[in-house]
Amino acid sequence: MGKIEDRITELGLVLPPPLTPPAGTRLPFHSVHVVGELAYVAGHGPQAADGSIARPLGRVGAEVSPEQAYEAARLTGLAILASLSRAVGDLDRIAAWGRVFGMVNVAPGFDRMPDVINGFSDLLTEVFGHEVGGHARSAVGLAALPFGIPVEIEATVHLGD
Amino acid sequence: MGKIEDRITELGLVLPPPLTPPAGTRLPFHSVHVVGELAYVAGHGPQAADGSIARPLGRVGAEVSPEQAYEAARLTGLAILASLSRAVGDLDRIAAWGRVFGMVNVAPGFDRMPDVINGFSDLLTEVFGHEVGGHARSAVGLAALPFGIPVEIEATVHLGD
Amino acid sequence: MGKIEDRITELGLVLPPPLTPPAGTRLPFHSVHVVGELAYVAGHGPQAADGSIARPLGRVGAEVSPEQAYEAARLTGLAILASLSRAVGDLDRIAAWGRVFGMVNVAPGFDRMPDVINGFSDLLTEVFGHEVGGHARSAVGLAALPFGIPVEIEATVHLGD
Repeated sequence: MGKIEDRITELGLVLPPPLTPPAGTRLPFHSVHVVGELAYVAGHGPQAADGSIARPLGRVGAEVSPEQAYEAARLTGLAILASLSRAVGDLDRIAAWGRVFGMVNVAPGFDRMPDVINGFSDLLTEVFGHEVGGHARSAVGLAALPFGIPVEIEATVHLGD
Repeated sequence: MGKIEDRITELGLVLPPPLTPPAGTRLPFHSVHVVGELAYVAGHGPQAADGSIARPLGRVGAEVSPEQAYEAARLTGLAILASLSRAVGDLDRIAAWGRVFGMVNVAPGFDRMPDVINGFSDLLTEVFGHEVGGHARSAVGLAALPFGIPVEIEATVHLGD
Repeated sequence: MGKIEDRITELGLVLPPPLTPPAGTRLPFHSVHVVGELAYVAGHGPQAADGSIARPLGRVGAEVSPEQAYEAARLTGLAILASLSRAVGDLDRIAAWGRVFGMVNVAPGFDRMPDVINGFSDLLTEVFGHEVGGHARSAVGLAALPFGIPVEIEATVHLGD
């Protein structure tokens, strides 16, 4: 077990299994695509412990509260760590986080997207620390996200040896 | 002619000429910008055979059907391959696709963006195969796309020798 | 002083101090995150000379005119140059711009996002020239941007020695 996996266990966190997409959905791409030292992380949403899409669904500021959305961003982070672990074998191989693009499914009038995506950034800091977990970020409001998920995050990660 | 160009011909596909932007539109950037081994692909939309913006225009789920949007994502792919061909000379130089960011112009209530952007992913698989055509992807709903196009896609591509 | 800093002074431009975020806002990430030769630029908005968020706020096509939004994109560019200068020490280290992702906070019916983001692209050309300032770009309409800013831009930049 690597140090990051140990840290995840220490924190009492559990990484979910691969996404079970909704019936009739075809997703012909990789959750994480490694090219040389770069790992491109596809857009992920929050997942439940069984791999299904986590609830609640809907727009932040209407069906989903900002607090629930913060938690959804954290769950999205766990789903991303799980995909990275499956793709690269050992999360200790992550040398640096590059870009994080945080997308929030917004109801009219909601513009506190940074507070929501902090759920993801805070998780990175807890798990990787300030040095390796540091990243650049955007946190913006989308008109729609797939299947009504409240949060979606994509990222670029740099791998070491 | 390279192998990928041959494959495109075999499939009966035709790459469009450069985009003819709407009158009065200034686009002061590169359709594809190569920096070292990376080719950054600017946001592209669907193009007709004469290089103009393809029809229909509008929001998916209202003026544009999901089936028409799938086709628009496929046409967007052909426009991207055409720009890449002009920028790098030979599509065989593409060693790997990295990140694909699929944007759909959505009407309220439409959230099946993955089904739309599959038109692009399926084209990559047909042309490049599963190995080179593999990619990470997001497929999300935008509030507006330029000139009312239903789909816009940007990407990062890795070049080899 | 580097050549690019000289050019900025010649043009009569002034780079703003670090962003003063709105009260109660926590932004736990880097404005620019350097990993090897890549500088990932977080989403930036327009800043006033004192580092606060520039006015006007709101949606382009409603509270904010296209002309004001062009200017906001230019101010966003100055904020990005300021962050890059603080992160890498000398803007002459910028070897190439890669990807520019321009996001516009749109009112229903507004779809001239390219005209808005031209405020950023034009600034890059003025400051860096066509060679180094060249870039790939998307310019799209978002449902909401943080704190009601009219424009947000993120980018990837390549550094040299």
